[in-house]
Amino acid sequence: MVLLEFSMNPLGKGESVSQYVARSLDIIDASGLPYRLTPMGTILEGEWEQVMAVVRQCYERMRADCPRITCSIKIDAREGKSGRLAGKIASVEQRLGRELRK
Amino acid sequence: MVLLEFSMNPLGKGESVSQYVARSLDIIDASGLPYRLTPMGTILEGEWEQVMAVVRQCYERMRADCPRITCSIKIDAREGKSGRLAGKIASVEQRLGRELRK
Amino acid sequence: MVLLEFSMNPLGKGESVSQYVARSLDIIDASGLPYRLTPMGTILEGEWEQVMAVVRQCYERMRADCPRITCSIKIDAREGKSGRLAGKIASVEQRLGRELRK
Amino acid sequence: MVLLEFSMNPLGKGESVSQYVARSLDIIDASGLPYRLTPMGTILEGEWEQVMAVVRQCYERMRADCPRITCSIKIDAREGKSGRLAGKIASVEQRLGRELRK
Repeated sequence: MVLLEFSMNPLGKGESVSQYVARSLDIIDASGLPYRLTPMGTILEGEWEQVMAVVRQCYERMRADCPRITCSIKIDAREGKSGRLAGKIASVEQRLGRELRK
Repeated sequence: MVLLEFSMNPLGKGESVSQYVARSLDIIDASGLPYRLTPMGTILEGEWEQVMAVVRQCYERMRADCPRITCSIKIDAREGKSGRLAGKIASVEQRLGRELRK
Repeated sequence: MVLLEFSMNPLGKGESVSQYVARSLDIIDASGLPYRLTPMGTILEGEWEQVMAVVRQCYERMRADCPRITCSIKIDAREGKSGRLAGKIASVEQRLGRELRK
Repeated sequence: MVLLEFSMNPLGKGESVSQYVARSLDIIDASGLPYRLTPMGTILEGEWEQVMAVVRQCYERMRADCPRITCSIKIDAREGKSGRLAGKIASVEQRLGRELRK
């Protein structure tokens, strides 16, 4: 299973890009994959081809009206582990013996 | 104000590195800066020198017993905007007219 | 056309991971896509599905014997522009009026 | 010693941002640190505080006329190893027994 975090921004569409981000989130939400929105991106959980298919859909939608796009993707893949969207934080909290801000 | 997300991992310390992550979170928590833990990293909010000082502290602590360290940092800096740790998600939700998983 | 830079590392395989990086480079070299090796990753040029197919091949190869893998990907997509693997640096050099170390 | 790759872009300054990139490269070139320009960013080699000081200078210069800035940074730190700007690629090439495109 793969945790994939990504953020995708158009260049040349002004300083505020939240309308484009909102469109991506519509696609993500409709994908049915477990996801988490953070202040810096979106984290998806699934198999490689599942999460990558969602990122690509966001890209295809954005390129329809944005000629230049930057995207950063970070992947943490671990065999045989699912439920890590919640589990990774819980494991760190358990080690520290207290809850953290999330 | 700057939003800075980072993750820092030792190489060569085995497949599970949560004890090292926990130590970083102790430093982050003690810094007093607003922060948010995500399944893929930690997001700090503050001025450039404030957030970078915390990342450096984590690095100095980790290098004490980890000879090789990888770190990725993503920054979103916007003049005159604070409270973005909560505000960025709220702005996207408002545009979509519904709440998202976070 | 897309410029995609990526680096992919196993966790838990020791401090030096160059044997795994070398295997990825074999895959990249055999892909036939234009690429550039840097001290921090590899940059591919092609259409989205082409460059992503190469990254996935590297992932499939690595996961065969590495249970945990981290990967970071950075994409710069620009409609109607090809030859940017060489062109981006040339454009900055032209603006500065001198050559830079590359 | 630290290898640090970074790219820094303004949002809301149009689709082509090479004039801003050129200013950063002036700062980098004047820093005296070993560096390498790639099609996707710039790689610096030095101690943590040295390379971070250069990134911060680029940020301070850019924020003077860019209200929103995104920046991504990737760090590979390894105790007691210098000359890695050239050495990392050489080590992979040696393993493969041939030269690669760089």
